[in-house]
Amino acid sequence: MTLSTRPAGAPPAGEAAAPAPPRVCFDAHPDRYRHWRMQIEGRVARLVLDVDEAGGLVPGYPLKLNSYDLGVDIELYDAVQRLRFEHPEVGAVVVTGGKDKVFCAGANIRMLAQSSHPWKVNFCKFTNETRNGIEDATASSGQTWIAALNGTASGGGYELALACEHILLVDDGSSAVSLPELPLLGVLPGTGGLTRVVDKRRVRRDLADVFATRAEGVRGETAVRWRLVDESIPRRRFDEVVAECAAEAVARSGRPAEGRGISLTRLRRTIGENAIDYPHVRAELDREAGTVTITVHGPGETAPDGLEAIHAAGAEFWPLAVARELDDLILELRTNELELGTWVLRTRGDSAAVLAHERLLTDHAGDWLVNEIRHYLKRTLKRLDVSSRSLIALVEPGSCFAGPLLELLLAADRGYMLDGVIEGEEGEPATITLGETNFGALPMPNGLSRLEVRFLGEPDQVGALRGLAGEALDAARALELGLVTSAPDDIDWEDEVRLALEERASFSPDALTGMEANLRFPGPETLETKIFARLTAWQNWIFTRPNAAGPDGALRKYGTGQRASFDRRRV
Amino acid sequence: MTLSTRPAGAPPAGEAAAPAPPRVCFDAHPDRYRHWRMQIEGRVARLVLDVDEAGGLVPGYPLKLNSYDLGVDIELYDAVQRLRFEHPEVGAVVVTGGKDKVFCAGANIRMLAQSSHPWKVNFCKFTNETRNGIEDATASSGQTWIAALNGTASGGGYELALACEHILLVDDGSSAVSLPELPLLGVLPGTGGLTRVVDKRRVRRDLADVFATRAEGVRGETAVRWRLVDESIPRRRFDEVVAECAAEAVARSGRPAEGRGISLTRLRRTIGENAIDYPHVRAELDREAGTVTITVHGPGETAPDGLEAIHAAGAEFWPLAVARELDDLILELRTNELELGTWVLRTRGDSAAVLAHERLLTDHAGDWLVNEIRHYLKRTLKRLDVSSRSLIALVEPGSCFAGPLLELLLAADRGYMLDGVIEGEEGEPATITLGETNFGALPMPNGLSRLEVRFLGEPDQVGALRGLAGEALDAARALELGLVTSAPDDIDWEDEVRLALEERASFSPDALTGMEANLRFPGPETLETKIFARLTAWQNWIFTRPNAAGPDGALRKYGTGQRASFDRRRV
Repeated sequence: MTLSTRPAGAPPAGEAAAPAPPRVCFDAHPDRYRHWRMQIEGRVARLVLDVDEAGGLVPGYPLKLNSYDLGVDIELYDAVQRLRFEHPEVGAVVVTGGKDKVFCAGANIRMLAQSSHPWKVNFCKFTNETRNGIEDATASSGQTWIAALNGTASGGGYELALACEHILLVDDGSSAVSLPELPLLGVLPGTGGLTRVVDKRRVRRDLADVFATRAEGVRGETAVRWRLVDESIPRRRFDEVVAECAAEAVARSGRPAEGRGISLTRLRRTIGENAIDYPHVRAELDREAGTVTITVHGPGETAPDGLEAIHAAGAEFWPLAVARELDDLILELRTNELELGTWVLRTRGDSAAVLAHERLLTDHAGDWLVNEIRHYLKRTLKRLDVSSRSLIALVEPGSCFAGPLLELLLAADRGYMLDGVIEGEEGEPATITLGETNFGALPMPNGLSRLEVRFLGEPDQVGALRGLAGEALDAARALELGLVTSAPDDIDWEDEVRLALEERASFSPDALTGMEANLRFPGPETLETKIFARLTAWQNWIFTRPNAAGPDGALRKYGTGQRASFDRRRV
Repeated sequence: MTLSTRPAGAPPAGEAAAPAPPRVCFDAHPDRYRHWRMQIEGRVARLVLDVDEAGGLVPGYPLKLNSYDLGVDIELYDAVQRLRFEHPEVGAVVVTGGKDKVFCAGANIRMLAQSSHPWKVNFCKFTNETRNGIEDATASSGQTWIAALNGTASGGGYELALACEHILLVDDGSSAVSLPELPLLGVLPGTGGLTRVVDKRRVRRDLADVFATRAEGVRGETAVRWRLVDESIPRRRFDEVVAECAAEAVARSGRPAEGRGISLTRLRRTIGENAIDYPHVRAELDREAGTVTITVHGPGETAPDGLEAIHAAGAEFWPLAVARELDDLILELRTNELELGTWVLRTRGDSAAVLAHERLLTDHAGDWLVNEIRHYLKRTLKRLDVSSRSLIALVEPGSCFAGPLLELLLAADRGYMLDGVIEGEEGEPATITLGETNFGALPMPNGLSRLEVRFLGEPDQVGALRGLAGEALDAARALELGLVTSAPDDIDWEDEVRLALEERASFSPDALTGMEANLRFPGPETLETKIFARLTAWQNWIFTRPNAAGPDGALRKYGTGQRASFDRRRV
């Protein structure tokens, strides 16, 4: 992970005199990790957390006791990705600590105390997404994550363990798991902890209440009985049991022992004053309008000829390249460009070429690499779903909203499609095309396809649309089918789009965030939607309250020896 | 609705110089309504909203354009309750407006702008609960609510319509439905609007986005096509169609045309400095400790002898009397005693008598009145579930946690049960008893019984417990079965309970609210949990942000002719 010198936006107004947050870059590589060690031993990977105290992303907080900040998490995210793509042989990932006594003390508290509200919220969101990625590796990729807690796991440290499939805690009379945020800091466990405790591990709610209010946590057999960990193991047997557990996971894994990974090569990215460029994705930043126009380009080359060619192309294979670039861009904009509140989503290219690539994904769905690519596309689109930015898709002549790229239109809060062509311009009127992947392969965080969510009120419509897959649908048809919000002709197009964007920029950014979080996820709820929509919202609220973040709040008083002073009114 | 002169707690610190909120009383009666007219015509009730502009609960805001404040909502809640208990013959309730052009302009904005944060949040919660009660009348009581929008329904006015089963909008070229909160005020529709739009009415999410950002709303056939209303009707045919719709609902209703209602007599309640007393419920307020001890008394008399006797007892029938008293007390404490953050739940009486009353509810479940009583108990317990107070149940000798009263223990965040008796005191050790109603008759907002929620991690346990219904379970047994959190003996009891309460009082009230909202509702989500847990949390956050509530925020600038000034960073 590297930092450029360009600062990310203005310093927070009216917030603590925090150092201006750096412009964050999400590049990382195991050779350069400062906080993790990745060790591959046959079919088992060990990921050892050994935080460099002096390696904080921002000055002002030593990363004591294996506590973490965004920089530590960026490396973890890199490890999660590389294990999936570069190590098909790995069927089990053991996360453990590199220090004595403590596995991980959680998010660094001084860092939280000095951070602006948007920074805290962004940090929690990214960390949660990485945790979800860990769960996705276990569920979708045959790569089972095991937490080998060789010391105490507190707060975010325990939340990391909660993201693993199996939690082994050393029984040494002192090592515990704990969520001490509420008693010590007056905030909630910020990365899904409460939800994972009661919804994933199904801890009884009154025991969860005791647990989450007991700063020292729970250890030994009690932790097992309360379902907080799976096993409590004496230190002398710890390594052995961890190895057994990993071996069992490997035995269950469908990943190819003899597979050859592909290399996640360094992203080619150019950051200019008002543009961010990748080979297939370009972002144009309009700071005055508060918008970013994101253009995703379809494949420039013909689709590889079969599975071997896909493996040979590796990170250059168009669907993977696009997923990586879009993923990086979302993180880049979300973290560094807080004031650009609307993302305009466009595509350029040949729909047939997009669909040819989609066909490869479908035809070779059983291949480990193709499987990884599909799930990475899924995760990238989910990252878009939970981004607190207004998403407006524009479908114009020359675009290629087809199959996987059609998901960008379906993920948008609104979609505008030009009916016809602008007078005097060349080219054919735009069309959009449904593909196989629109019908379940790329689910939203709530487990439904974007089409299912869109047509909750007319469920038969999804079946009807299936019959239209592969057909080029023009604007009138797309409007009639409910696939776009509006389809102005060339006389109205420019004004209607401009007004929509200007109007969006005039609204309260907070209210937009809240509205979008509610409108995007009708229907069922899952662990993920509960974390992002319910837990996160409560935490956001608590983060802004004087009881936590005010000068006498618990977050600011922690470690000073003084007690926080609370407004005792219950809300 | 009446107001006493005693102020409710201290004036808000650091908030707008709002008039100190009055101590609110939730009594109301149709004879004294200032804002509603209830007209019963055969089997159809008409509820006419005709707000008295000068009748605001607090000085400082005329209730123009049929806008409402808490006082208007208290009358509505009274009407909802009376229609169910006093009018068994009524099968359809038509809500309509008593003014020209406007049905209801929603919550009064000046009231919102001048209110403290806790007041706003409490107001929204109570209003939402009333809306849920309207939906419950349609779903559980054969009393179908119909919104006859004879003019524009904006904001909370449209949200009231959304709570109805059927929405009829007059088509006069100007009357519209709208949710203008986001564009005009920088907040969200606060009483379930967004959730009801996409989850209940299943409006397509991009259309919902357009709708919720368009201050002037949507009217006529577009409103029908977007699923925002069910019918758009010319004014000359309006009354006729409304009457037809009501007649159809009556025809579908299973309520007894010839039934005789019972009278919801005035509650007997004494409010002292440190106690609130009802015949069956007593609350002791300890302002220093920040606790309220709520003691619910079991039946003082033998159970009525059959159905006729239940009807004859009416509001004196113990289960109904207790539901009413507890309901009133929850509202009383939630609104007027913000600093009392922990409610200690106790019972006194004879478990056998409680279970005898429960048996009556089960044996006569098909009777309309018994059905109403069960659903009222359900709604009251749900009100407890969503109250932002820590709930600690204490099971001691002389208590009667059995059947419906056992739900108080299951609703609590923690339950402590004394194992044995306190040395030197008389009486038998406490027991608890499962009853029929614990297995599904009184579901939580998420649709599950409290036992199902408790044992999400051990689903077989619920079946096993069913076999134990009617058995008196002592502390050791209750602990072993997972029904209580802790069962200290007489040596530890006092200290353990005292420490738990002191510890609770030392925590951040905000963090407790957030934690409890997350731990209480594992498992599935419903319209209700989405409204209370997701939408409410976002709204709470937005309510505290300067973009809405700050001196230059949208809520404060509304109506001044000045534009709000926003911090444009997206969070």
